[in-house]
Amino acid sequence: MSLLHPDRLFPVDTRGRDLARDLFATIKDLPIVSPHGHTDPRWWGENETFSDPSSLLFTPDHYLTRMLTSQGVSFAAMGIGPDAEPDPRRIWKTFADHYYLFAGTPSRMWVDQALEDVFGVSERLSPKTANDAYDAIAEKLPQPEFRPRALYERFGISAIATTDSALDDLRWHRKALEDNWQGRVLPTYRPDAVIDPDAPGFARNLDRLGELTNCDTGRWQGYLDAHRARRAFFIEMGATASDHGHPTPRTADLSAADAETLFDRIRAGRPESGDAELFRAQMLTEMARMSVEDGLVLQIHAGSSRSHSDEVREAFGTDRGFDIPVPVSFTEALRPLLNAVGLDPRLTVVLYTLDESTYTRELAPLCGVWPCLLLGPPWWFHDSYEGMRRYRAGVTETAGFWNLAGFNDDTRALCSIPARHDVARRVDCAYLADLVTTHRLDEAEAFAIAPLLANGLAERAFRL
Amino acid sequence: MSLLHPDRLFPVDTRGRDLARDLFATIKDLPIVSPHGHTDPRWWGENETFSDPSSLLFTPDHYLTRMLTSQGVSFAAMGIGPDAEPDPRRIWKTFADHYYLFAGTPSRMWVDQALEDVFGVSERLSPKTANDAYDAIAEKLPQPEFRPRALYERFGISAIATTDSALDDLRWHRKALEDNWQGRVLPTYRPDAVIDPDAPGFARNLDRLGELTNCDTGRWQGYLDAHRARRAFFIEMGATASDHGHPTPRTADLSAADAETLFDRIRAGRPESGDAELFRAQMLTEMARMSVEDGLVLQIHAGSSRSHSDEVREAFGTDRGFDIPVPVSFTEALRPLLNAVGLDPRLTVVLYTLDESTYTRELAPLCGVWPCLLLGPPWWFHDSYEGMRRYRAGVTETAGFWNLAGFNDDTRALCSIPARHDVARRVDCAYLADLVTTHRLDEAEAFAIAPLLANGLAERAFRL
Amino acid sequence: MSLLHPDRLFPVDTRGRDLARDLFATIKDLPIVSPHGHTDPRWWGENETFSDPSSLLFTPDHYLTRMLTSQGVSFAAMGIGPDAEPDPRRIWKTFADHYYLFAGTPSRMWVDQALEDVFGVSERLSPKTANDAYDAIAEKLPQPEFRPRALYERFGISAIATTDSALDDLRWHRKALEDNWQGRVLPTYRPDAVIDPDAPGFARNLDRLGELTNCDTGRWQGYLDAHRARRAFFIEMGATASDHGHPTPRTADLSAADAETLFDRIRAGRPESGDAELFRAQMLTEMARMSVEDGLVLQIHAGSSRSHSDEVREAFGTDRGFDIPVPVSFTEALRPLLNAVGLDPRLTVVLYTLDESTYTRELAPLCGVWPCLLLGPPWWFHDSYEGMRRYRAGVTETAGFWNLAGFNDDTRALCSIPARHDVARRVDCAYLADLVTTHRLDEAEAFAIAPLLANGLAERAFRL
Repeated sequence: MSLLHPDRLFPVDTRGRDLARDLFATIKDLPIVSPHGHTDPRWWGENETFSDPSSLLFTPDHYLTRMLTSQGVSFAAMGIGPDAEPDPRRIWKTFADHYYLFAGTPSRMWVDQALEDVFGVSERLSPKTANDAYDAIAEKLPQPEFRPRALYERFGISAIATTDSALDDLRWHRKALEDNWQGRVLPTYRPDAVIDPDAPGFARNLDRLGELTNCDTGRWQGYLDAHRARRAFFIEMGATASDHGHPTPRTADLSAADAETLFDRIRAGRPESGDAELFRAQMLTEMARMSVEDGLVLQIHAGSSRSHSDEVREAFGTDRGFDIPVPVSFTEALRPLLNAVGLDPRLTVVLYTLDESTYTRELAPLCGVWPCLLLGPPWWFHDSYEGMRRYRAGVTETAGFWNLAGFNDDTRALCSIPARHDVARRVDCAYLADLVTTHRLDEAEAFAIAPLLANGLAERAFRL
Repeated sequence: MSLLHPDRLFPVDTRGRDLARDLFATIKDLPIVSPHGHTDPRWWGENETFSDPSSLLFTPDHYLTRMLTSQGVSFAAMGIGPDAEPDPRRIWKTFADHYYLFAGTPSRMWVDQALEDVFGVSERLSPKTANDAYDAIAEKLPQPEFRPRALYERFGISAIATTDSALDDLRWHRKALEDNWQGRVLPTYRPDAVIDPDAPGFARNLDRLGELTNCDTGRWQGYLDAHRARRAFFIEMGATASDHGHPTPRTADLSAADAETLFDRIRAGRPESGDAELFRAQMLTEMARMSVEDGLVLQIHAGSSRSHSDEVREAFGTDRGFDIPVPVSFTEALRPLLNAVGLDPRLTVVLYTLDESTYTRELAPLCGVWPCLLLGPPWWFHDSYEGMRRYRAGVTETAGFWNLAGFNDDTRALCSIPARHDVARRVDCAYLADLVTTHRLDEAEAFAIAPLLANGLAERAFRL
Repeated sequence: MSLLHPDRLFPVDTRGRDLARDLFATIKDLPIVSPHGHTDPRWWGENETFSDPSSLLFTPDHYLTRMLTSQGVSFAAMGIGPDAEPDPRRIWKTFADHYYLFAGTPSRMWVDQALEDVFGVSERLSPKTANDAYDAIAEKLPQPEFRPRALYERFGISAIATTDSALDDLRWHRKALEDNWQGRVLPTYRPDAVIDPDAPGFARNLDRLGELTNCDTGRWQGYLDAHRARRAFFIEMGATASDHGHPTPRTADLSAADAETLFDRIRAGRPESGDAELFRAQMLTEMARMSVEDGLVLQIHAGSSRSHSDEVREAFGTDRGFDIPVPVSFTEALRPLLNAVGLDPRLTVVLYTLDESTYTRELAPLCGVWPCLLLGPPWWFHDSYEGMRRYRAGVTETAGFWNLAGFNDDTRALCSIPARHDVARRVDCAYLADLVTTHRLDEAEAFAIAPLLANGLAERAFRL
């Protein structure tokens, strides 16, 4: 008995299903390339045993906790916050009691597959099976083959990127390198805390940036030099990309003098209205200019209203499932950056969206003509069966396949990584089969494109 | 010969179709729960014979008249306005002459099914069949089993909500109660006329609200008390929900002093620019606060530009098919209300949209985390085969099933009610079958979820 | 061996595919009606031999060149701009080398079909086949049956519209008429250059408009009279429509005095902020008023940000694939025009969008009630298999079929015209088959509607 049907996510018609099966057989065992994600670098550097099923599989995964929140389950019961339930088994029981809520969601597919493929648990999680599942997992966690690096190898990962503050010392990446471990764990330069004037502690962050780099971050040129220095350090530690999460995708290309004046106002703590947004906008263009020089792939994601509940943010912190998308438009927003450096062959910019109306309206048309632009995969709420189908159907006809950045899993849920890539590969094979059965693509082409979608485009986009 | 194929709206593949059939068999006869609609309370209270086929089935249904308007048919010919055609048979003939226009629309499915299932008319409406259909219906209308209460019972309705002005005396609801009729007809508190400063006669409406409640609606606290009193009256008469149709979903949470000052400006007839919008915004939050106290479910729909043609509104009134959606965004708009009361377990807010781009971008993410929020069904232009499919595909992966408010028919077209629920149930069974045949859901789960979609979620959401 | 499967784009299920085949058989040979396009009038007037494969099939088609641009191919290599490659065979080789990029795009279907059906080239374009394909085409071009008028006849075109500046002398249309050629080539009145104050050389254009018409285009009434005169000239030369490409769909209905004052400010070169947008808005309403009088069908398309790269525009001109859509909303924008003349039975307005979120939100609801409005076909980035399916699924349920303007190919790529209509007809037959197999339409109705979608609606909409 299994939770996982071998034909899951494939077309229902016989010809399409058979073709999807055949395509999938050729790519299912290809290495996992994970160029954008949120696993904890400490796991890879320290390689310690995971403590318990709940803190590994449930509590930190806000895809999961948000669903329970929506049905009135308290954060405390999920092991989060001031009065958190201390017993991981009871937390697990709460999760299992509400697991029925995930029917029809991608989270269900990911958890099912993680339980079965990683831990050999083949009964669906429920109030009845909660204890047995907990025991089965808890028994395995202390074994050496369930430590992080063993999982990396068992999952067939060939490279995985983390996301790291510009101020991070990357000690765990260094540790992994020093151990001469064969795994490839790349840091990603994420400088939001030193670029966004609205970020908590922004002034202190800039001071710290100055200390780390011996640059005068009190002045515009020194501040830019400090970025250059940190980027060089990240590159030394293996980074191939930077990542920028802004409220909007707005970019700017001010004159050097205007940029300096803007920086001075912000640094002096006397910003005018709109300065924070304008500074973020200007800095995307500055980052793109540095990318032209140092080769880091520039990732831009925008359009999430973070921490929608003040009360939840104050009591339980960020990343609690309360980040909600807003409408976004890229066309005019990206124009300054693109006109500054968009035709330079050395530049790669990967765009992500949470507003699917931008797929056919803006992103496929933009990525289908600007040489520097690649479209990132369906992302966050959209890396799911239906979300991926909408993405392929919306994007391919205008942008083709070669203007895409390939799949990435964007997750902190380590054990779900193989499942996420499995889902993406299945949906892509189903899509390719659909192209063939409607005679929009030759069968041989489908077999040639399948491995690109599985990992080839990601390797190419992120220069791995 | 029949207009209605038993497999209509089911999947085309054999396995999916058979499963959809089996699922549908288990739910097709479940009671109809109709928690949001626009049937005339007088029908239920008075239980009089309907006068003729045209005024029952065609003229008041702006889904139907708008299509004829779009092809140049005059309102007069449809029996509307100053020089209205007086002969219902000739109006019917005009409808039948243009019935071909509805090919491919849900209106066609609803009318076909109403004609066949309610009146035994199995020939599609056309110039040729117009007279016979008219006669067949006209012959039946005087019979006791075609009076409103008999139809309620025959349709298998277990509860139906009407939509009623806050100033309404609910005499027909009272009459139905006093008659000890077994039917359940619930009023819904719709206070737009006393909340929207742009509503015609707003000042007079507030005076009247004061008279009805013995509250001083010249002052902010008295005005709020008057709402409390009317809500209590509606609850006494069976109401479980309020309904709010605003141009935008904007909410506000002003200080008590600011709210009072705002009210005073408006009440004095000296609003500043933006005051009307701000007052509507503030009142949604006030209504939510009252809902926390009295338990009425708060329904918000927004984003329709009403009466797009001034000339049509002036000559023929509102609700003539000229309400056109505009872009809408909920994320920032709802933030004040949600931060005020959104974590209170006593609150239920049902959201409706006419802008489908909000499904995946905002509504599923919002309802998938805020405990008070439920997403209403595809609505107005979207309660159709394709509209429902887009809704399920867009919403389920992020919000699951339990954050939905279930189906409602939202109609004034009495005889279409069974057809509308039939269409919804069929499309939902097709969707569930699709989940099973692609191995995203177990078959047993599909059978458990089907009755929830048919009426269980609606009963739960509306506290019936 | 063939590039073209006879069942391409049809449903995969047997019943649907067989029905689509049967439907397609009845319409595939119907005349091509092309009421909106961009073929060069000189072709039709002069009827000269095309010079070479590259300049006929590749270089001017920005759908094709933009894809190569996106992958870093230089304009020069594609034969465009200052240092353009002079050898058409080498340009063709560059195209063929990158033809794999079009996998999954409609361009691939169009080029494949043009090569095979028009030129007998049945091997897919690739580095290997480039030379043979070039030779095969180059050999045919000098033959009389490959001249423009012969192709018109061979393609089964019954009418084709071009798009022409208001200042054009229409000499090639005149030539075609004077030759008594049986082909029907209609000019379209495109007055953007004399309506948009932001257009290059606007003031000179107005002077020229005055010279051509003997009207005083220094004054508002004279300017309007000049439009009337040019429209009359276009109508004399066969025009049945005007076409307006504005940044936004905004319309206005100023008083005569305000319109005159606005014109005076603009004509004097002293526009205030917002005047250009307001003038374009006012002129759409003025054009609609003239349409009421003279019967030209008014086409409005909006929402493209033109020439997104300044550098590309300056070095290589407009229409290089850098026109990118932006969000658009029609509901409030069209209200002034519609309230001015929207109920006049003499008016027809065809709306086009590049923002698919407007299909269900605004365009189907608008066209489903206003008698003057027709919805144009999926367009530009969206006249593709998936784009057309989204259009049908999104539009039909609210607007039906009779509020649509039918298909048009909107292309300057002459040899792709049969392929574009073939794709549209196939997708429409697949859609009709889907309606029948899900029992939303009778089979007989599908056969009646298919020819309307193929060309009947276009003939009706454009008064051909």
